[in-house]
Amino acid sequence: MDRKGILIVVSGFSGSGKGTLMKELLSRYPDTYALSVSATTRRPRDGEQDGREYFFITEDEFEKMIAKEELIEYARYVKNYYGTPKEYVRKQLDAGKDVILEIEIQGALKVKEAFPDTLLLFVTPPNAEELKKRLVGRGTETMDVIESRMNRACEEAEGMGHYDYLVVNDDLELCVEEMHTIIQGEHRRSFRNEAFMKTIKEDLERLKGEN
Amino acid sequence: MDRKGILIVVSGFSGSGKGTLMKELLSRYPDTYALSVSATTRRPRDGEQDGREYFFITEDEFEKMIAKEELIEYARYVKNYYGTPKEYVRKQLDAGKDVILEIEIQGALKVKEAFPDTLLLFVTPPNAEELKKRLVGRGTETMDVIESRMNRACEEAEGMGHYDYLVVNDDLELCVEEMHTIIQGEHRRSFRNEAFMKTIKEDLERLKGEN
Repeated sequence: MDRKGILIVVSGFSGSGKGTLMKELLSRYPDTYALSVSATTRRPRDGEQDGREYFFITEDEFEKMIAKEELIEYARYVKNYYGTPKEYVRKQLDAGKDVILEIEIQGALKVKEAFPDTLLLFVTPPNAEELKKRLVGRGTETMDVIESRMNRACEEAEGMGHYDYLVVNDDLELCVEEMHTIIQGEHRRSFRNEAFMKTIKEDLERLKGEN
Repeated sequence: MDRKGILIVVSGFSGSGKGTLMKELLSRYPDTYALSVSATTRRPRDGEQDGREYFFITEDEFEKMIAKEELIEYARYVKNYYGTPKEYVRKQLDAGKDVILEIEIQGALKVKEAFPDTLLLFVTPPNAEELKKRLVGRGTETMDVIESRMNRACEEAEGMGHYDYLVVNDDLELCVEEMHTIIQGEHRRSFRNEAFMKTIKEDLERLKGEN
């Protein structure tokens, strides 16, 4: 069986801990996974490095990438563009790495439409009470902020059913292994192994004739 | 997340070693899996026990089960009926066990049609040469027998694409773990967790109101 990389979109509730989860997955299996680096027109924050957190580019550069169809997906939030450059992803997939995009649902669905083999994973806390606790407990937030976070969570919940798998983040260690298990299992999907099936069929026909 | 059993159909090339694989999987994870026991009208062979290898029943009993729709699928080979009793499978699934049916492709497709959540796994040697070696190397077979086995393998290969996953049986130990991994990963499919998604949505709406 060949080992072509899988394009994976990871979304999840804000507060589901998916950022930490991704970091842990990548540090545990650095040869298996690569994180896609997005391009953005927003300014780098303190400590952010070009090519690590984001590719920081100008609006003009971004719009040229759109025009040349060099982005897998993109969106505009407030005044800034965010998008996923195709080239970086393609290189990693060709090298056999499973490439992870961490984007929200609208982007996820666009990617799936353009690349139907994309694997969609949704990270969720074990239940709503735990999610609320995480959203409330982050600090000394106002009621307005909490309400707006809960509203957002309700919207995010509506999208869950569009994802292929739900990953329950209760215990980080277990969750990382579960995510790894799911992705590695996906490599054995028959639709991801058309070449293997074709070869075995052709070889059997040939070997049959050699009797 | 609840833990409802998954109905799993395992097929594969004759000579793929799926019998040994199933035995090993069940002995390693006896609390996770149950093997479905088929009903048949053929006579027990030496050493076969009723309720273990098969439920041995009469033709009359079998036809009554067909009439009452008590079989998930059935087929007639030569003069004998073979079929999968629903009741045994349902009991095991309700108890949270993943139930494995070892049947060939026509049966597999019938089961999937009747129960779309069924997981279809196909066991294959790593390549056609290895498969031929196993088919030839079983003993002192005539050329006719080998030819007929190769013909059968070619037919079996045509069905591979209908299965959800391909399981490559090269190293038994690895293959058992891979199969386990695939099945356990499937438990996290969103379509298998409708109840979980419904609950989290309802709870979020409720908790939002409690601010």
